[in-house]
Amino acid sequence: MPNGYNGRILRVDLSAGSVQTEEYPDHFYRQYFGGEGFISYFLLKECKAGIEPLGPDNKLIFAAGPLTGAPAGGCGRHSVGGKSPLTGGYGEADSGGYWGAELKMAGFDAIIVEGKAEKPVYLSIQDGKAELKDARNLWGMKALECQEAIRGELGDKNIKVAYIGPGGENMVRFAAVMNDLDAAAGRTGMGAVMGSKKLKAIAVRGHQRVGIADAAAFKDIAKWIADNTPITNKGMHDFGTARVVAALNPAGGLPTRNFQLGSIDGANKIDGQAMLDTIFVKRRACYACPVQCKREVKVDKPYKVDPRYGGPEYETIAAMGSDCGITDLPAIAKGNELANAYGLDTISCGATIAFAMECFENGLLKNKDTGGVELRFGNADAMLKMVEQIALRQGFGNTLAEGTARASRKIGPASEPYAMHIKGQELPMHEPRLKQGMGVGYAISPTGADHCHNIHDTVYTNVGPMLEALYPLGILEPMAANDLSAAKIRLVKYYTEFIHFLNCAVCCYFVMSLSLVGLERITQLVRAVTGWDTTFFELLKVGERSANLARIFNLREGFTVKDDTMPKRFFAPHPSGPLKVALDPKAFEQGKQLYYQMMGWPNGIPTPGRLGELGIEWAASQLPSK
Amino acid sequence: MPNGYNGRILRVDLSAGSVQTEEYPDHFYRQYFGGEGFISYFLLKECKAGIEPLGPDNKLIFAAGPLTGAPAGGCGRHSVGGKSPLTGGYGEADSGGYWGAELKMAGFDAIIVEGKAEKPVYLSIQDGKAELKDARNLWGMKALECQEAIRGELGDKNIKVAYIGPGGENMVRFAAVMNDLDAAAGRTGMGAVMGSKKLKAIAVRGHQRVGIADAAAFKDIAKWIADNTPITNKGMHDFGTARVVAALNPAGGLPTRNFQLGSIDGANKIDGQAMLDTIFVKRRACYACPVQCKREVKVDKPYKVDPRYGGPEYETIAAMGSDCGITDLPAIAKGNELANAYGLDTISCGATIAFAMECFENGLLKNKDTGGVELRFGNADAMLKMVEQIALRQGFGNTLAEGTARASRKIGPASEPYAMHIKGQELPMHEPRLKQGMGVGYAISPTGADHCHNIHDTVYTNVGPMLEALYPLGILEPMAANDLSAAKIRLVKYYTEFIHFLNCAVCCYFVMSLSLVGLERITQLVRAVTGWDTTFFELLKVGERSANLARIFNLREGFTVKDDTMPKRFFAPHPSGPLKVALDPKAFEQGKQLYYQMMGWPNGIPTPGRLGELGIEWAASQLPSK
Repeated sequence: MPNGYNGRILRVDLSAGSVQTEEYPDHFYRQYFGGEGFISYFLLKECKAGIEPLGPDNKLIFAAGPLTGAPAGGCGRHSVGGKSPLTGGYGEADSGGYWGAELKMAGFDAIIVEGKAEKPVYLSIQDGKAELKDARNLWGMKALECQEAIRGELGDKNIKVAYIGPGGENMVRFAAVMNDLDAAAGRTGMGAVMGSKKLKAIAVRGHQRVGIADAAAFKDIAKWIADNTPITNKGMHDFGTARVVAALNPAGGLPTRNFQLGSIDGANKIDGQAMLDTIFVKRRACYACPVQCKREVKVDKPYKVDPRYGGPEYETIAAMGSDCGITDLPAIAKGNELANAYGLDTISCGATIAFAMECFENGLLKNKDTGGVELRFGNADAMLKMVEQIALRQGFGNTLAEGTARASRKIGPASEPYAMHIKGQELPMHEPRLKQGMGVGYAISPTGADHCHNIHDTVYTNVGPMLEALYPLGILEPMAANDLSAAKIRLVKYYTEFIHFLNCAVCCYFVMSLSLVGLERITQLVRAVTGWDTTFFELLKVGERSANLARIFNLREGFTVKDDTMPKRFFAPHPSGPLKVALDPKAFEQGKQLYYQMMGWPNGIPTPGRLGELGIEWAASQLPSK
Repeated sequence: MPNGYNGRILRVDLSAGSVQTEEYPDHFYRQYFGGEGFISYFLLKECKAGIEPLGPDNKLIFAAGPLTGAPAGGCGRHSVGGKSPLTGGYGEADSGGYWGAELKMAGFDAIIVEGKAEKPVYLSIQDGKAELKDARNLWGMKALECQEAIRGELGDKNIKVAYIGPGGENMVRFAAVMNDLDAAAGRTGMGAVMGSKKLKAIAVRGHQRVGIADAAAFKDIAKWIADNTPITNKGMHDFGTARVVAALNPAGGLPTRNFQLGSIDGANKIDGQAMLDTIFVKRRACYACPVQCKREVKVDKPYKVDPRYGGPEYETIAAMGSDCGITDLPAIAKGNELANAYGLDTISCGATIAFAMECFENGLLKNKDTGGVELRFGNADAMLKMVEQIALRQGFGNTLAEGTARASRKIGPASEPYAMHIKGQELPMHEPRLKQGMGVGYAISPTGADHCHNIHDTVYTNVGPMLEALYPLGILEPMAANDLSAAKIRLVKYYTEFIHFLNCAVCCYFVMSLSLVGLERITQLVRAVTGWDTTFFELLKVGERSANLARIFNLREGFTVKDDTMPKRFFAPHPSGPLKVALDPKAFEQGKQLYYQMMGWPNGIPTPGRLGELGIEWAASQLPSK
């Protein structure tokens, strides 16, 4: 098999209780690459149309990439995918920490989980051997207890565990697959899929080093990353992802009160500096990462926050904070701890609570509906209460555990204007009135509203080094964040394909960004690990290929261009605050059309020619007949 | 301006008798690059729809690229373009020799010639100074006399001259713009455009070295090319382009008797070895080229062939030889000398004579029509007679000087099955029954049947090193020459865009091929010269951009998908010979459709999105309204 890979994919049939190892030809690896690429391939190839996401026919796929576990910054992530119980379409998210690297060292590139166990089980993989084990005693456990119990049972405290908490067990539709206590494959509800299969956890441990074709070249690049990225990405190193709060709030780009506003009084109480000054304990890193954007935090009063669950990232700060009208950092840290312990996506969780708060404020929900919880913007206790109720599907939490779209249908049509979702997935904390290219990306992403299959927001500062980083793509002129011209949509297309590629390589955006490491060095890194004489051209095609497979998965499920939507709210400006612009309906629609045209998707549907160009002619047969 | 360029484009208004220098922003150079890229840009931007190709509104553009004149193999070419009098669409061809390099050293990147001189003139450019000069005394001169006269007049025997012969003066629709006696910008009739403007020649001389950003890196690559390509392309070095005769004849890929057949008895009398054994004098090279595929030949009897006009290349050997049923190498060498002296495209010239021979053989032409010339296959004297008559528009030559399509219309509808042209341009000497991907390329090329805006035929041996050279494009599997599946059309698309890029860089296919120098080293060469941090991704987009501009030029002129044709002959196999297959109408049509889909051209028309992706939104306004 090619360097960088184990050449072994594990297939686990939970219904049969069996495990088996599969091998694929070399070209399979080069074409589908890993992570998202494996997931989109296997989901389209192996799942039938119309399956129930929370039924035994769904598959849950864990996948690393060729770089995963190679000792370089940004190479410590893995992807988890399946049909999404939140959107009914393509589902997939990736996670940092140490689990992905350990999976590789344990001898596998990916795991395909099928069927459903009768009783709770977990999967143990140690140095190439895989085994299903009884998890009845683990069922109901939160993250920390679960991880410790497995490590105890297997007698190795260095075992890495990916798991679900009670949120996944209870099939909360935005439950996450967690690992390492503070890392989440958060979006699209993969934790619920894992829960539906009664698979509590996957424990991995191994000693196999990732094969590297050109060790000297690899070492040089890894050293360059280690030496440079903590300096060039100093803000991320010093303040974590929370650093962006201080930039977004004055720009009107900090989602506030369920996206009614873009800034909040007291933003300085929840920004990176505030965290450093108050609850910060120390930096944490994913595998081999020099940037170390993760945090450890400690709160004693009024909440007790266990430092082991890590500190809130930007998405959590906005979703459980400003978007709920909350600027109480200890409360947000507690919400983060709860979500990590119970295994929930902090974005969808916070956003769904924010939605409920707006319903409450507008009289669509009353105390009797919420079990007496005063779901008002700014009420941190109410937010925390709901996180727990959601995870346990208790009280009103059982409604919100279905996600914003389903909760809105239950509450009634009057709540629909407050339901900030696309294709059933809640918007992440990037304001599409400000980041309009990302807005187009939200509408088109196969995962619904998602920043992880989308243009990365740093691109909006595409002047100076960022712009120069785009020159090798032929993009020579800067453009504004709210520009939706063809020039901008080109940037959206290219950058989204680059992100799709990073999802296939399962590399971190915060390290392997175009402006930090640069496309040439990323290409060289892939060359050094795999030994392939690859080009950025080929790597971008890897991303485009995966984007097309995911698109086809959704088309097969019945999605059409009519599902490439944007909540109406974003076409009107904030009633107050610094950002004066909103999405223009005509420009937005035109932006989508340009995107389809650039992708070679007339009516939003990939042509046989486009699939042929990507070497996936086989996928044409999966398109719905007209 | 960027390294590699002079940053100066010369505009010559022949009607006004004026010259002026223009400068363009840096990004213009990076986006349009040079050669074909400049030509397609200026023709679309500056020419109105519907202009007469042989009238004063047409423009004739000479363009070099950033690498032209940099001392490395393959960097000695230039392009000539304008609206084609042969096709009525986009016209452009490129030429080797020394003229392009000298143009760069004389201080210009390109020349845009407009209007029409009242009396014959020539343009003299010496070290940045341009001047129009009286050419009345040169009018009527053949190549050698013309070149010597100008050198004498300007008093410098090192002056390089691009010129037309009597063929161009007489506006033979396939007249070439020649240079250095044996180099031709042959196809699409640019010599006729030059003749229509009464511009006899452009003499260039300069001492400005091409600016190189990274001299050390450049030197390394140039040395690699010099050391390796004569070995890796040894066949071309030893036998010239004629080497392919010995490969194509047994494969049924040697156009014979107006493409009725694919092989000829006596092919061994016109192949590379035969040339070496008989008429060969020595190898010749273009500027800085180590491959040296050009030949010098000498014949004394029965014809006298002046060695200074060079020897016949493969295209000439087939067009004036096998396609006319002729295996007489001295006669072919004489035909080549005549075409070079008179300034005719040997391909269209030979092919048009072959067409006339088939008409004659079938009784559509009689002795009375041809002025007594027995235009039978195999009649070398008749062929030579016609070359001269065509150039001078004498007798029946006046009919054939209009090219195959117009001659066929004059001869009558019964001759149409024998008219081997697409969009009015005669097929080059690559058999589309064998090279079926090139067949699709013929149909779609903006220049009509053309191998110079098309997949390169060596790709058909895409096994071993050639296939590995395609891996970085994501093409991982070999495919057959007669395969027209999506996988193959992808190869056609990518390779055609690569050729378009080489046309923009104006680099030689025989040096800068993917299997010889390789895409990575070519990219590094562009980087070393220009200093741009470019990628192969960007370079391929340069080619795609130019292909789209040329396509739009044709659409504006009224071309539609219905013009993307193939003569019926190629859908039936040769009546005898080694090649048993022909184009399949259904597979061919599907191949075209796949190509359009891959290009993002529904109904053959680029979408605004596709143009936006290429950074040429402005070109959308040039599309015809529906």
